[in-house]
Amino acid sequence: MLTIHHLSYSRSQKIIWLAEELEIPYELKLYMRDPQTLSAPPEMKALHPLGTSPLISDKGQTYSETGAILDYILRHYGEGKLQPPADSQDFDKLMEWMHYAEGSAMLPILMMIYSNYTGAKSDTLTGMLQAQLGKHLGFMESALAGNDYLVGNTFSAADIHVSFVAQTAKQYTSLDSYPNILAWLDRLEARPAFKRAEEKGGYFGAAKP
Amino acid sequence: MLTIHHLSYSRSQKIIWLAEELEIPYELKLYMRDPQTLSAPPEMKALHPLGTSPLISDKGQTYSETGAILDYILRHYGEGKLQPPADSQDFDKLMEWMHYAEGSAMLPILMMIYSNYTGAKSDTLTGMLQAQLGKHLGFMESALAGNDYLVGNTFSAADIHVSFVAQTAKQYTSLDSYPNILAWLDRLEARPAFKRAEEKGGYFGAAKP
Repeated sequence: MLTIHHLSYSRSQKIIWLAEELEIPYELKLYMRDPQTLSAPPEMKALHPLGTSPLISDKGQTYSETGAILDYILRHYGEGKLQPPADSQDFDKLMEWMHYAEGSAMLPILMMIYSNYTGAKSDTLTGMLQAQLGKHLGFMESALAGNDYLVGNTFSAADIHVSFVAQTAKQYTSLDSYPNILAWLDRLEARPAFKRAEEKGGYFGAAKP
Repeated sequence: MLTIHHLSYSRSQKIIWLAEELEIPYELKLYMRDPQTLSAPPEMKALHPLGTSPLISDKGQTYSETGAILDYILRHYGEGKLQPPADSQDFDKLMEWMHYAEGSAMLPILMMIYSNYTGAKSDTLTGMLQAQLGKHLGFMESALAGNDYLVGNTFSAADIHVSFVAQTAKQYTSLDSYPNILAWLDRLEARPAFKRAEEKGGYFGAAKP
């Protein structure tokens, strides 16, 4: 059976949410961050050489990387749900969002976390990161103009993957000037599967040092 | 026809390399970074709201995000080349690497670039980024132990995507303690398609402020 290794306050919430949306069977293993260092515990690090979260285990293999895991679950267990038809341009757009979330959009947020945590700051860096975050939020805001969801105006795995960016961005900046994003988050957080994922996995957002 | 928008000294080299490996027809449009700010020129920024590189245009759409673009070209033009069979565990491993390169491995390098560029430094940050980069290089080094290539010991798009991490890492740290990575880079850079990509797109590596 699919095993989801979930680290508290982490992206692996998205994996639980997807599994709940698809209503597939899975075993959930919970790991708590060290309250001082925010690191994953040693038993999670032992599962994979990178020691990162999320991880899944299935059919004798363990896989890392949020985008790859979401993609894995869609391909192996999705039965075509939460994704457009594979031969449509919307599918190409889905793939773009699936790489965008961690390949680009999380970058300024992660840099903010790192620079806060290590005390490395400069006005230039802060300005650059705020500008980058604003660019990404503006991109998402535009994509949601006139649309309830990111791809083909239908709820998909892209919404699960990308909404975490907005949820963690809220911890670093006001989203008041992004009404489409706020309405989208309300829409997503009202989903029964989202609520079940939060009940099972805990708070939905990044650990904040 | 597929159009590859290539920014000098950027990840979009990988897109040219993949197209050359597949020997597919494409139009190459070159854009030069501003020598002072290293930014993409306005005509590239006008192509996509994020203004990032790489970009491709095809069938009336423009797509961003390196991993998504490589995936797009494999799905639409790959004819099964440079990837394991879709129903194999090796395909799942390919997908993991395809998300890993930009979703995780480039992160410490990009943070080094940003903190150098903006003068934001601390010993803690430097130590943390060097440790992270070392973890990623160690991961790649182990994956290449006894293997010439990352997936199924056969050259694939994962080698194209992930090798850029090692190529840019060389600009920030010595790879002398990673003999498998160095031998792999030699193997990859000897490929005729790599050489053609370098002839057409220029120097293979990140812009270094």
